[in-house]
Amino acid sequence: MIEPFLEECLSVLTRTPAALDVLLRDLPEVWTTATEGPGTWSPYVIIGHLIHAEQADWMPRLTIILEHGPNRPFEPFNREAQFVQSKGKTLPALLDEFADLRRDNVARLLALNLTAEQLERNGMHPALGLVTARQLVATWTAHDLGHTLQISRVMAKRYRSEVGPWAEYLSVMK
Amino acid sequence: MIEPFLEECLSVLTRTPAALDVLLRDLPEVWTTATEGPGTWSPYVIIGHLIHAEQADWMPRLTIILEHGPNRPFEPFNREAQFVQSKGKTLPALLDEFADLRRDNVARLLALNLTAEQLERNGMHPALGLVTARQLVATWTAHDLGHTLQISRVMAKRYRSEVGPWAEYLSVMK
Repeated sequence: MIEPFLEECLSVLTRTPAALDVLLRDLPEVWTTATEGPGTWSPYVIIGHLIHAEQADWMPRLTIILEHGPNRPFEPFNREAQFVQSKGKTLPALLDEFADLRRDNVARLLALNLTAEQLERNGMHPALGLVTARQLVATWTAHDLGHTLQISRVMAKRYRSEVGPWAEYLSVMK
Repeated sequence: MIEPFLEECLSVLTRTPAALDVLLRDLPEVWTTATEGPGTWSPYVIIGHLIHAEQADWMPRLTIILEHGPNRPFEPFNREAQFVQSKGKTLPALLDEFADLRRDNVARLLALNLTAEQLERNGMHPALGLVTARQLVATWTAHDLGHTLQISRVMAKRYRSEVGPWAEYLSVMK
């Protein structure tokens, strides 16, 4: 029996790599390298960010909560790591890497067999202060959806001028 | 040889049904029936809307442009049709229907073998006035991405309170 909230999160967490794979693999580079302007992220950059979060954010922080509680603050997360880590890698290679890491992390999360009580345990975020394991897993899930949203938005906005008068009806263009 | 702009649009249009299928099929109903509040759309409602657009918007309007030009205005599109059309249908059935309709419409679009010149032809939108076939196909593409974005946003916002202090870092929660 998986804890019900965890099961709900896992139903999304297990789907994200395949959804982004279908959306992005072998898509022309004009789409996958598009950004919303200087300093903003392309779909390619976003997949690299999701990879680094699998490596350095979610499961490492959950482990700290379970093993040390709030006495040991999390390591700060580097939001720019992908600009170095993704260097020389193709998008299909990054999609594979993300899928592999997510599969491993989901297996590790399941193996913990967390109870509702364990999900209420506290950790210490270096900037945000006290958080719970449950909030961490919820954030992992919402973070997936937020970046799926971002990828769709970056791509849609490429066509801001192409859609002509229809821009008025497309809230993404506003 | 497909016209290059058309090819770029088709690379997205052909992927959308499978991407939404991976994201939504067999997902717990708490996710697929979630909304952003009264009067807003759930992922289930959005798939019904995408189905109606395949039936009544994109290809019918493109056909009017090619056969009649701006002399025959498009039929107005009913943005609420899915509330009647989807009645009694399961989400997996809607996902299948959307995939089938999209496959047919992509095949019809390819069969037209449109040239760059044909894509510049004008049609008459009942509210927006003069538009081109190229703008119509660009809007079809951006509309897919806009609703993929919307589905991700609706789902992410379910966790606005679940993420606790992390809401500050998740722009989708703002």
